[in-house]
Amino acid sequence: MYQAKAYSAASSTSPLASTKIPRRDPTDTDVQIEILFCGICHSDLHQLRNEWASVMPTVYPLVPGHEIVGRVMKVGSAVAKFKPGDLAAVGCMVDSDGTCPECRAGFEHFCPNLTLTYNFPDHHLGGVTYGGYSESIVVDQRFVLRLPSNLDLAGAAPLLCAGITTYSPLRQHRVTKGKKVGVVGLGGLGHMGVKLARALDAHVVAFTTSPKKKDDALRLGADEVVVSRNSDEMQKHVESFDFILDTVSADHDIDALINLLRREGNLTLVGAPSKPLAISSFSLLMRRRNLSGSNIGGIAETQEMLDFCAQHNITADVEVIPIQKVNEAYQRLLKSDVKYRFSIDMASLKVE
Amino acid sequence: MYQAKAYSAASSTSPLASTKIPRRDPTDTDVQIEILFCGICHSDLHQLRNEWASVMPTVYPLVPGHEIVGRVMKVGSAVAKFKPGDLAAVGCMVDSDGTCPECRAGFEHFCPNLTLTYNFPDHHLGGVTYGGYSESIVVDQRFVLRLPSNLDLAGAAPLLCAGITTYSPLRQHRVTKGKKVGVVGLGGLGHMGVKLARALDAHVVAFTTSPKKKDDALRLGADEVVVSRNSDEMQKHVESFDFILDTVSADHDIDALINLLRREGNLTLVGAPSKPLAISSFSLLMRRRNLSGSNIGGIAETQEMLDFCAQHNITADVEVIPIQKVNEAYQRLLKSDVKYRFSIDMASLKVE
Repeated sequence: MYQAKAYSAASSTSPLASTKIPRRDPTDTDVQIEILFCGICHSDLHQLRNEWASVMPTVYPLVPGHEIVGRVMKVGSAVAKFKPGDLAAVGCMVDSDGTCPECRAGFEHFCPNLTLTYNFPDHHLGGVTYGGYSESIVVDQRFVLRLPSNLDLAGAAPLLCAGITTYSPLRQHRVTKGKKVGVVGLGGLGHMGVKLARALDAHVVAFTTSPKKKDDALRLGADEVVVSRNSDEMQKHVESFDFILDTVSADHDIDALINLLRREGNLTLVGAPSKPLAISSFSLLMRRRNLSGSNIGGIAETQEMLDFCAQHNITADVEVIPIQKVNEAYQRLLKSDVKYRFSIDMASLKVE
Repeated sequence: MYQAKAYSAASSTSPLASTKIPRRDPTDTDVQIEILFCGICHSDLHQLRNEWASVMPTVYPLVPGHEIVGRVMKVGSAVAKFKPGDLAAVGCMVDSDGTCPECRAGFEHFCPNLTLTYNFPDHHLGGVTYGGYSESIVVDQRFVLRLPSNLDLAGAAPLLCAGITTYSPLRQHRVTKGKKVGVVGLGGLGHMGVKLARALDAHVVAFTTSPKKKDDALRLGADEVVVSRNSDEMQKHVESFDFILDTVSADHDIDALINLLRREGNLTLVGAPSKPLAISSFSLLMRRRNLSGSNIGGIAETQEMLDFCAQHNITADVEVIPIQKVNEAYQRLLKSDVKYRFSIDMASLKVE
């Protein structure tokens, strides 16, 4: 065991502050990674504020962060896939049982014995796992991804959550050339959805509530932009979409979006509005449409996504900040004042 | 044009009463059918009371009925598929354009120029179409189904709506041997769902709010019965269903049902609760589950369903009534006091 610099929150109302946390010495199957960049996901903020108390109550001190890229420092004796100096990445999970039907099918994220990257029981050291707002992390090799060397590291970090969360449903629903695909919401997830759907050769329509975002949506790769509050614009697209990726976490009119689907079209939610969704059964009945959810992706699919991004040179649009600005960044995140993801430069932690 | 005996309602608060309605003389492509039995669907009641005013306002006088079986009286010169004396059946629709992508794909029920069996603009006579509470009907041959001769006629009538409405999603979602399938609600639709899912060799679990219906659900073919208000019983089935067919039209806890689905499982609604459904996004996100709707089926699939029912000797459980008891039957329908469908013996109309 060793001590690593990190930023943690002491309670649901505390700011994140400099601290030291224990990390285990690498076991035979572990990879020790120096963290270079860590993205800030909205989940980090929800978890800090204990806003998911009913499903995942927060244990303090909390060290958030599950969009991790870095460089391998040390590997256990049984690790063949990585060597010191390699680029590596870690996403939302760091362990699973590896033997259940979900794991065997490549859905480690649905394993009943899953360990998330932070705020989950730590089977090695006791207590809970600590995330990526830290100078290093030690992770079993099964949960370490290869990071292609051509990607910008700061922009690659958000791929580990925002990237896989949007890539997985686009792939599951066979988004490809000739398909008309909507991406709703132009935030951390949505801007990745637009980039990925475009790279998959779909006809991409971005939906935003803010006319100001039109130009940016086009720049990100959208073929068209619809202001979802403009019912005339919406009407033009009725019954025309094969697939809609809905990344919005706030309460919004999902029925209006479902009605834009053609027969047997699918709208997949990747945001998690806290209020129940109000869905008219008629919207689903009338063209036997489908409403689904999706939640990150398995390890093999995450690697596939990173390789796909490398091939198409896709990273997130990020604003790089030093860790000392993390509390300010959280305040700005609440106002959606970021294009489109904060990425923490972990070199800044060395001066603490 | 000729006059046919029928039962119609003069307003949303009027009882159904004896009347005469115009029917067209058969064109070259028409089939004239003597109606022998007509099922009573809950839609008939909704339409009579104008409860769908916002989507399908009722035009009076209304002649309901879209679960029609009968015998061919006369055919047009271009009709090769039927001859006088043949058994025949008509369901929820009587015309479509035949040329749109939906029609060409076998989804006539989604054709933008669809004509429903009643309360829809009648392109031949003007006014609106009149349904099956009548001694005869004239329908284009494309919308007339062959009725296998081994089926009980009174019990076969409800197959034309309740049968296809439940058969279509069971087939779409590949319900077959080895699949665990739930059927929610044990009414006109639900009891057909149980019979059909059983005939498709699935492991069938019937959900009912009423413990009194347990024995009957087993008799209909359920392998297990769950009282959905009993949370212990529900808990035993968490994350175990491949598919759930939800036939309930009343407000109910759909989240509790979605949570019974395994990864990528599907819950399909065929009932149409008038209040928006309240769905937790987490229920869908967590196992990337799916919520869909389905609404009758195309003509080819309806014929497939009738042939499947003939092969497995499946009909609805019906209470046969004379047309003179139709208003009383509507009152009982409101109290779910029927096992499981009323079927009107149209011979009773001859005495009017």
